[in-house]
Amino acid sequence: MPLKLNTLYLSDFISSHELDYMAPALASAHKLLEDKTGPGNDFLGWLSLGNSNPPDELARMKESTRWIQDNCDILVVIGIGGSYLGAKAALDFLRSPNYNALPKSTPDIIFVGNTLSPDALNESLALCKGKRVCLNVISKSGTTTEAALAFRVFRALMVEQYGKEGAKDRIFCTTDAARGSLKSLADTKGYPTFVIPDDVGGRFSLFTPVGLLPIAVAGCDIDAILSACTAAQKTFASLDLEQNPAYKYAAIRNLLHRKGRMIEVLVSYEPALTMLGEWYKQLYGESEGKDGKGLYPSSMCFSTDLHSLGQFVQEGSNILFETVLQIAKPQADFFLAPDSENFDGLNFLADQNLSAVNQKAFLGTLLAHLEGGVPNMVIEIDDRSEKSFGELIFFFEKACAVSGYLLGVNPFDQPGVEAYKKNMFALLGKPGFESAKKELEDKLLKLSSAQ
Amino acid sequence: MPLKLNTLYLSDFISSHELDYMAPALASAHKLLEDKTGPGNDFLGWLSLGNSNPPDELARMKESTRWIQDNCDILVVIGIGGSYLGAKAALDFLRSPNYNALPKSTPDIIFVGNTLSPDALNESLALCKGKRVCLNVISKSGTTTEAALAFRVFRALMVEQYGKEGAKDRIFCTTDAARGSLKSLADTKGYPTFVIPDDVGGRFSLFTPVGLLPIAVAGCDIDAILSACTAAQKTFASLDLEQNPAYKYAAIRNLLHRKGRMIEVLVSYEPALTMLGEWYKQLYGESEGKDGKGLYPSSMCFSTDLHSLGQFVQEGSNILFETVLQIAKPQADFFLAPDSENFDGLNFLADQNLSAVNQKAFLGTLLAHLEGGVPNMVIEIDDRSEKSFGELIFFFEKACAVSGYLLGVNPFDQPGVEAYKKNMFALLGKPGFESAKKELEDKLLKLSSAQ
Repeated sequence: MPLKLNTLYLSDFISSHELDYMAPALASAHKLLEDKTGPGNDFLGWLSLGNSNPPDELARMKESTRWIQDNCDILVVIGIGGSYLGAKAALDFLRSPNYNALPKSTPDIIFVGNTLSPDALNESLALCKGKRVCLNVISKSGTTTEAALAFRVFRALMVEQYGKEGAKDRIFCTTDAARGSLKSLADTKGYPTFVIPDDVGGRFSLFTPVGLLPIAVAGCDIDAILSACTAAQKTFASLDLEQNPAYKYAAIRNLLHRKGRMIEVLVSYEPALTMLGEWYKQLYGESEGKDGKGLYPSSMCFSTDLHSLGQFVQEGSNILFETVLQIAKPQADFFLAPDSENFDGLNFLADQNLSAVNQKAFLGTLLAHLEGGVPNMVIEIDDRSEKSFGELIFFFEKACAVSGYLLGVNPFDQPGVEAYKKNMFALLGKPGFESAKKELEDKLLKLSSAQ
Repeated sequence: MPLKLNTLYLSDFISSHELDYMAPALASAHKLLEDKTGPGNDFLGWLSLGNSNPPDELARMKESTRWIQDNCDILVVIGIGGSYLGAKAALDFLRSPNYNALPKSTPDIIFVGNTLSPDALNESLALCKGKRVCLNVISKSGTTTEAALAFRVFRALMVEQYGKEGAKDRIFCTTDAARGSLKSLADTKGYPTFVIPDDVGGRFSLFTPVGLLPIAVAGCDIDAILSACTAAQKTFASLDLEQNPAYKYAAIRNLLHRKGRMIEVLVSYEPALTMLGEWYKQLYGESEGKDGKGLYPSSMCFSTDLHSLGQFVQEGSNILFETVLQIAKPQADFFLAPDSENFDGLNFLADQNLSAVNQKAFLGTLLAHLEGGVPNMVIEIDDRSEKSFGELIFFFEKACAVSGYLLGVNPFDQPGVEAYKKNMFALLGKPGFESAKKELEDKLLKLSSAQ
């Protein structure tokens, strides 16, 4: 079954004419994407990634995948933001959040270079101790501070452990086709490279080698993911809202926002989807959070978080709506046998699969939250397969692009990310930032002597 | 150094007279707590947990801790909400989010019974395979569905693996002193029990055996945690805001809320604090999210999330403020050696510790977000020691109680958590819920045939 968007539960919040009235704006947003005439139109490569990865690049990637699987115990993926969230989300979704801890025939995978914490860096080095290591460093420019610093450290480790020649076989660089310090380092040292296309931004790069290489190393079928993406490219280009859940979702989240909802909570009932929530938060937060606009993207895992944030959702400030991501089938079910003693009185739950109980928790929560005045819509997918994953990711991407145009922003830039970087560089004394350094230090001094 | 609240960066957002004007309301909230006359006054036991755990209970807990450490490879902690978030937050903070994966002399610890996902349950069983297992089941009543179901499964595993007699040594129940199905099961079967006091709610229970037993098994010094809590009980009872950062924090978050901020983001620059963010989200969300009120509690880990949600914070909807939790010293630092080739141009960062770079990232981000119109305050603590942790937890608890009274809610109940449970029980056919079952099923049918 293809992905379905169930909007039946919204009847108390949105009238059907409201969706009709959105049609012209949707058609216009659609046209901006199709004609590539909207803001950010240099970054629309993600629209066709299902079938635009060069076959020889894919073949090389598979060859490297086999080499890595055969010759290493742990793959260290170095990247931040869009350079790791998609692969980590995929790994959890398709395999497991316990992937490293569980027995398996593929290498462990750890994600580093996404923090400046010395404790985290020291621990990632400890995790590699005594193991056969490969690196996949992912950075368009090679100068993103967090990733570049980690790469320095891990590259030195590789050279120490395997020598300059041996390191060549074990360091894989996913970077720009021609420019940047990582590309030139790779060329100089002879490290194999995979290309991040110029017209694909970080948060839209899951279907490029950025996501595909680590996903393949984990033993997942990247061809199936790309096929699902290709199919989704067609489905999610229809202007008929009943045929196109992506556009319908984009329209509804904008309508709910216009009615005063400030927060969208992406909910699932499966811990393996928690990292997908983190990926979603970047995709929507970075695409829409600009010009003083945007829904705040948040995520929860139920029923876990019903025992922490459930109270707020049910009875707190009425400022959010929920988008529930519901999976029909678990990877494997668990049969609940009855307990002859029944101390806990839970035998009424027995003689059925746990997934059935989880499904009733979902329906019970849905009704409770509707009763509490919280709009809910439900994205329904079959399972945690590559096919479902590829479709789901493209669904969110396409919906995000259209949603951003409906909101009136450029969904493909991220000017605000530079602000902290510039300040950090200046405070760290990066050459060329001398005057900014003085200015910022003065500001800090003034602030700290204000009282 | 004791915990410090730095509010110097708020000068553009809050005038000093505003804090003065809050003094009477703070004094009144303080009095409600001291006199135990406010709403929820049956649940104030947490105010004195630093020194009110019975010495014999603590001694028994330490004895059990040693037994568990000597006789098991993995401790399975079964609990949901307040029955696991505090211990998990402590484990990450005091030891590491990579605790299980890193070499150590104490047992692995996994947290189960906090979801209804069959995949998660199957995997937690797989993680125990071939290992010496102990259980710590944590539930006041013993009938909380998620935890009770998991306990059924793991208890059966224990009996199968160790026999009824052997299981007695390996199952530790943290529950009510006298009532409830878990207590009666434990008494019948001869499992040792530890008491959750009647006057301490789940989210305030970290300093009871709920948090202390798992924390002790991980090798942390629970006496040091309790001493810090005892000291904090005194510090955070002063009505002088300059002496009492907890009350000042409570006042400021209410002021910012009244000025239109809907979301508080708890920020840290250390991945080991991510779970503390989850604990904080329950504490504040469940305490304040009621009667249509409350700040939405959210959390981020920087610089990681500056590359995902940073754009939103910097330039998106101006609806949030940040509370930064800043740690002066890492567990161990990392010295950045210069790279003679300097391909990435990052030598300007070399010849210093990574923590210094992380600190500049913090300052640079602070200035950038202030410039973006986002109020920031900073909670400063020394390190990731037991002392700092005990003080920090009590800081948040005390501030939460006062903040809830300032907001005008009962910070100690959670009536909204029942709504989903009632519906779920009815849909699952629990005896006694027959009429509700029919009503809910009719509602679902009506909703799904609406269009």
